[in-house]
Amino acid sequence: MGHEIDLSYFDIRCDLISDTLENKKIKEIKIKKKNHKSIKIEEVVINSSVSKEINKKPGIYTTIYFEDITDYSNRNEVINVLSNELKKILKRKKLINKKVLVVGLGNSLSTPDALGPKTIENIIVTRHLFNLKEVDVEEGFSNVSVFTPGVYASTGIESFDSLKGIINETHPDYIIVIDSLAASSIEKINKIIQITDSGIEPGSGIGNNRKEISLNSLNIPVIAIGIPTVVDAATIVKDTINFLIEKISYNIVNLNNPKEKLINPNLINYLNNGYNLDKEEKKKYLGLLGDLDDEEIKSLFLEVLSPIGYNFMVTPKEVDFLIDKLSIILSKSINKVLHSNLNINNN
Amino acid sequence: MGHEIDLSYFDIRCDLISDTLENKKIKEIKIKKKNHKSIKIEEVVINSSVSKEINKKPGIYTTIYFEDITDYSNRNEVINVLSNELKKILKRKKLINKKVLVVGLGNSLSTPDALGPKTIENIIVTRHLFNLKEVDVEEGFSNVSVFTPGVYASTGIESFDSLKGIINETHPDYIIVIDSLAASSIEKINKIIQITDSGIEPGSGIGNNRKEISLNSLNIPVIAIGIPTVVDAATIVKDTINFLIEKISYNIVNLNNPKEKLINPNLINYLNNGYNLDKEEKKKYLGLLGDLDDEEIKSLFLEVLSPIGYNFMVTPKEVDFLIDKLSIILSKSINKVLHSNLNINNN
Amino acid sequence: MGHEIDLSYFDIRCDLISDTLENKKIKEIKIKKKNHKSIKIEEVVINSSVSKEINKKPGIYTTIYFEDITDYSNRNEVINVLSNELKKILKRKKLINKKVLVVGLGNSLSTPDALGPKTIENIIVTRHLFNLKEVDVEEGFSNVSVFTPGVYASTGIESFDSLKGIINETHPDYIIVIDSLAASSIEKINKIIQITDSGIEPGSGIGNNRKEISLNSLNIPVIAIGIPTVVDAATIVKDTINFLIEKISYNIVNLNNPKEKLINPNLINYLNNGYNLDKEEKKKYLGLLGDLDDEEIKSLFLEVLSPIGYNFMVTPKEVDFLIDKLSIILSKSINKVLHSNLNINNN
Amino acid sequence: MGHEIDLSYFDIRCDLISDTLENKKIKEIKIKKKNHKSIKIEEVVINSSVSKEINKKPGIYTTIYFEDITDYSNRNEVINVLSNELKKILKRKKLINKKVLVVGLGNSLSTPDALGPKTIENIIVTRHLFNLKEVDVEEGFSNVSVFTPGVYASTGIESFDSLKGIINETHPDYIIVIDSLAASSIEKINKIIQITDSGIEPGSGIGNNRKEISLNSLNIPVIAIGIPTVVDAATIVKDTINFLIEKISYNIVNLNNPKEKLINPNLINYLNNGYNLDKEEKKKYLGLLGDLDDEEIKSLFLEVLSPIGYNFMVTPKEVDFLIDKLSIILSKSINKVLHSNLNINNN
Repeated sequence: MGHEIDLSYFDIRCDLISDTLENKKIKEIKIKKKNHKSIKIEEVVINSSVSKEINKKPGIYTTIYFEDITDYSNRNEVINVLSNELKKILKRKKLINKKVLVVGLGNSLSTPDALGPKTIENIIVTRHLFNLKEVDVEEGFSNVSVFTPGVYASTGIESFDSLKGIINETHPDYIIVIDSLAASSIEKINKIIQITDSGIEPGSGIGNNRKEISLNSLNIPVIAIGIPTVVDAATIVKDTINFLIEKISYNIVNLNNPKEKLINPNLINYLNNGYNLDKEEKKKYLGLLGDLDDEEIKSLFLEVLSPIGYNFMVTPKEVDFLIDKLSIILSKSINKVLHSNLNINNN
Repeated sequence: MGHEIDLSYFDIRCDLISDTLENKKIKEIKIKKKNHKSIKIEEVVINSSVSKEINKKPGIYTTIYFEDITDYSNRNEVINVLSNELKKILKRKKLINKKVLVVGLGNSLSTPDALGPKTIENIIVTRHLFNLKEVDVEEGFSNVSVFTPGVYASTGIESFDSLKGIINETHPDYIIVIDSLAASSIEKINKIIQITDSGIEPGSGIGNNRKEISLNSLNIPVIAIGIPTVVDAATIVKDTINFLIEKISYNIVNLNNPKEKLINPNLINYLNNGYNLDKEEKKKYLGLLGDLDDEEIKSLFLEVLSPIGYNFMVTPKEVDFLIDKLSIILSKSINKVLHSNLNINNN
Repeated sequence: MGHEIDLSYFDIRCDLISDTLENKKIKEIKIKKKNHKSIKIEEVVINSSVSKEINKKPGIYTTIYFEDITDYSNRNEVINVLSNELKKILKRKKLINKKVLVVGLGNSLSTPDALGPKTIENIIVTRHLFNLKEVDVEEGFSNVSVFTPGVYASTGIESFDSLKGIINETHPDYIIVIDSLAASSIEKINKIIQITDSGIEPGSGIGNNRKEISLNSLNIPVIAIGIPTVVDAATIVKDTINFLIEKISYNIVNLNNPKEKLINPNLINYLNNGYNLDKEEKKKYLGLLGDLDDEEIKSLFLEVLSPIGYNFMVTPKEVDFLIDKLSIILSKSINKVLHSNLNINNN
Repeated sequence: MGHEIDLSYFDIRCDLISDTLENKKIKEIKIKKKNHKSIKIEEVVINSSVSKEINKKPGIYTTIYFEDITDYSNRNEVINVLSNELKKILKRKKLINKKVLVVGLGNSLSTPDALGPKTIENIIVTRHLFNLKEVDVEEGFSNVSVFTPGVYASTGIESFDSLKGIINETHPDYIIVIDSLAASSIEKINKIIQITDSGIEPGSGIGNNRKEISLNSLNIPVIAIGIPTVVDAATIVKDTINFLIEKISYNIVNLNNPKEKLINPNLINYLNNGYNLDKEEKKKYLGLLGDLDDEEIKSLFLEVLSPIGYNFMVTPKEVDFLIDKLSIILSKSINKVLHSNLNINNN
């Protein structure tokens, strides 16, 4: 690539701790891993020294990996796991039964960005009941209010500013913030939930610089729950080049395996086949492209797509269905944690 | 009606100055009346002494009466009149070109209550552009931001509180508040627009006591724009009894008029026929019911309907169409006043 | 009322058998009544001789009366009752496991008229699976397809015509038709479900003459399920006048009852107090109005309201919430009957 | 790639004539090209002999290429061009003023697939007025009805079957069918409109085999209007590899050009730079990948992505905004052609 690539120009901040940890292998970080049926859970605590090294805010990060949510019982499993993990974080931070403001970031009129507002629609709100003198709210129900700030370009007001104003008037003990994120791998889109107490930068995933929403900026704890719902074209290309390398390595090993010949080669899941191309092979199949590491490949394709306006953010065409189901998973999980006396099937 | 009727129990505060002025004839109040094609405009200024007498806040009240808005050119006329009247009030209060927050009260998920939020969707927002250092916003565009607080039972936060928080953080010079109101006559439902600088009590029309949104409570001028979109059953009955009296009086006069016999009597608009039943006739046709004045009739039917749960608030079944068209009228009118360089047809 | 009232002019066909039976007491008709918790069920069979007398098509009519559906467990009870009654009718007509087309009449863009289309959105469709050669559909699932014809003024095509075309091409064994109806009493609005095998006339409740959808016109059985969601102003007035008479009679009896004086008189449910005004009393309180019977009162108010354009059809202002919940009740009940192996909580 | 790639397995039928003509250079085909401001128009007639060769149905194909539609006046230009081109085709086929059924294919509940149903919502329907004996419809208005069949998986009925049933009952002279298509290049997504009289296969772009909608199958002329709104991951990768080649060739030529060094190289539009890599250079930069032609690259990435489930169809994240604006362009253009007396700004 002869000339210099200005990497900083395209630096999109990673929203997901799992991306960061995959890219940079940091010895000091211990990842606690668990499984619940087909669901994987990873928990990581970033302390302040590691924080600087990997450019992620310090805090607890829990990542939940799940598969298909078209199925009702799968969705219920995700709800069980998410509500357990959320509860654990609230306990650890002594926030159980405290007054909470649940905030849905994003644009209710733009489907892939509507995860926050749609989740809010189904949160069970009780603050107005606690404010009534004549009503004793049943035990097992927390004091919950909600807010959907909208997006800067539609309201003219930064989410941080409206949120701060409302916190000043309503005095919640902490906030839960829901947002849709940008994925930095196509394997994660609509497939993971990240919970963190480290705060959030609205729109950070898609390159807009917004004021951070965090304990630091708001003076009350912030629990952020995010799901990646969009991905950029450069990421799709980068991932596909990596898949191509895995596919070639698989083919090399299995080419003369008679068993393989019985099966349509296009139907074989070749991922994680335990074999990798060496430097020479990469060069043979991919030329200089084969010389680049993951971050360089991503940068290269950003450099290719951005100047001609084609590094667009995309979302799967089933976006309406997915946002609908994901927002139900989030609202049911949050309701379950905040209102322990609630019959989950009825909400 | 032997026993005592507790009038205070059912006292629904009138949202509309036009209701108040019809019910109580106050000599000192001068109503300026104008016409623009089929549209009537009434302007009234309530000073503080009259204010106490009629229990309406002091201020300017402009009422615009219009007919059918299914027709595109009729809608355009209403937009012309509303933008003119709104501009006049802003001029009078020296608010032209000042920074404004446009607020849509009501529930976006409940069609008859969605007038505010739906109007906000089409307001042209510019505050974020004014905040960009590198952008000089074209002349003829004001600094506009928007906010939709939602309703207390859905958010757990009073509109007043969230609004105050946002004003504290964003410092607009004044606010424009849009709300759907309760009509106290079936002739006014979806047929009038009221503009006032006297403030608003969210939900006041339907019996919920909410904190007032006004210059007094917020320390910046408040311009409220309201349209009645719902009416209660008792009002429908009260109006119909009055129509019945007019119809009987019409029939008495025209019964032997041969011309009338050529026409289907059911198709005759008998209103304002210049004839009234006397006390005896009223008694004959309506018994003791004929003895009651307008307020007593309303109270009687409230007393009949409320204990059995049938004084419901209703809205015409075409509510989706009406709210859609009315919100377009409001947003286009407001855009036209705030952004004078805008081509109205394009927004 | 001196002059003649042209009753036929305003004759709105009753959609509900319960209205007809209340108005005309027919000796030969036996109404089977049952109760399930707070839900009442009435079943009636109209034979052809009675049919002519009461101007209702012959057939089975089941009416389910329910109360509040804001509560989750109440809704579940209605689902249980409705699915039982629907199943009974299908059994009686030997339609269990037959191929069915479920049709949602009405306008998806007009909330009070969207009951049919919204119900259809949640019907579990299987016909395309039955058509796949490689798939054996599990037992306990019927062959189900759906259709939403839209409304004549929006599509330019009568529902009957599009429905007939689709039946000709897809050959279902019978159809289930869902429609929102006009109530002829405010006590019934959003409070009853009627199931009948006698067919339906789309829009008949609101005065539009449409081609009938029935066994007769389509040559396959038609099961119609309807809920009244709108009511006209004249009906509200008629009902209120009747409530007024009950209220007066209650007051007369209880006026000197000291127990009553302890209670806010406005909170007393005075309905069905077992006392009625006599002719003289009616005349005293209501004049000539007191002389009219129910149908005459309705006709009178139609005559009052129609010529001035105020006999509008209205719907409760909570229409979005109600249509949402009612459509869920209908879709869950229908799914339960058509797909017996389905876990009802999951659909 | 050592082993054999089964090309037929992944053959997605091209929806767009422009894709076909780019891929296969056919000498006999004459493309008429025009420009209107920034809009390009290409017209092509495929006769039956060419038809077989390129596997596209014979007929007229008009393709309109446009740029940004966020701007109101750009949208108006597209409306002018589209209505002109549509009118030309209707004239050529002698369909002006004939009875038309406008059909919106796709799923109204899935935003990227809702172009058809959303367009239908704004088509001005008149057939019901023509059917009224008492109404003479104004000259300059055609007899128009509309239909939205929904999608097979939601209705259980193939679009072709319901459409055929409705045509049999309502006897239109021709139909206009609107559909969202799959793009086979990221440059075309939401950027072109194709009009053709050759018919359509619903869902053909995304691999579902459906019955064809055409003159042949329906016995009346079919005018299809389509816009590509989704693209698959393999196409994004294929296009990016091509862009990469163009970018490298640009860099080679301009690397020592001092002018280029003044500009951020990432902001330069390097497309169509008139220089291409030769075979050796391709090999150097891309290895064996550089040896493949366009179709082979597409097939390769399909083979990589499909077995692991990542060849998903995606849509730009602004899909709600885009579908909204595109459906307005289509409905206004169609209304303008069908109802020549209509004031376009008012509809």
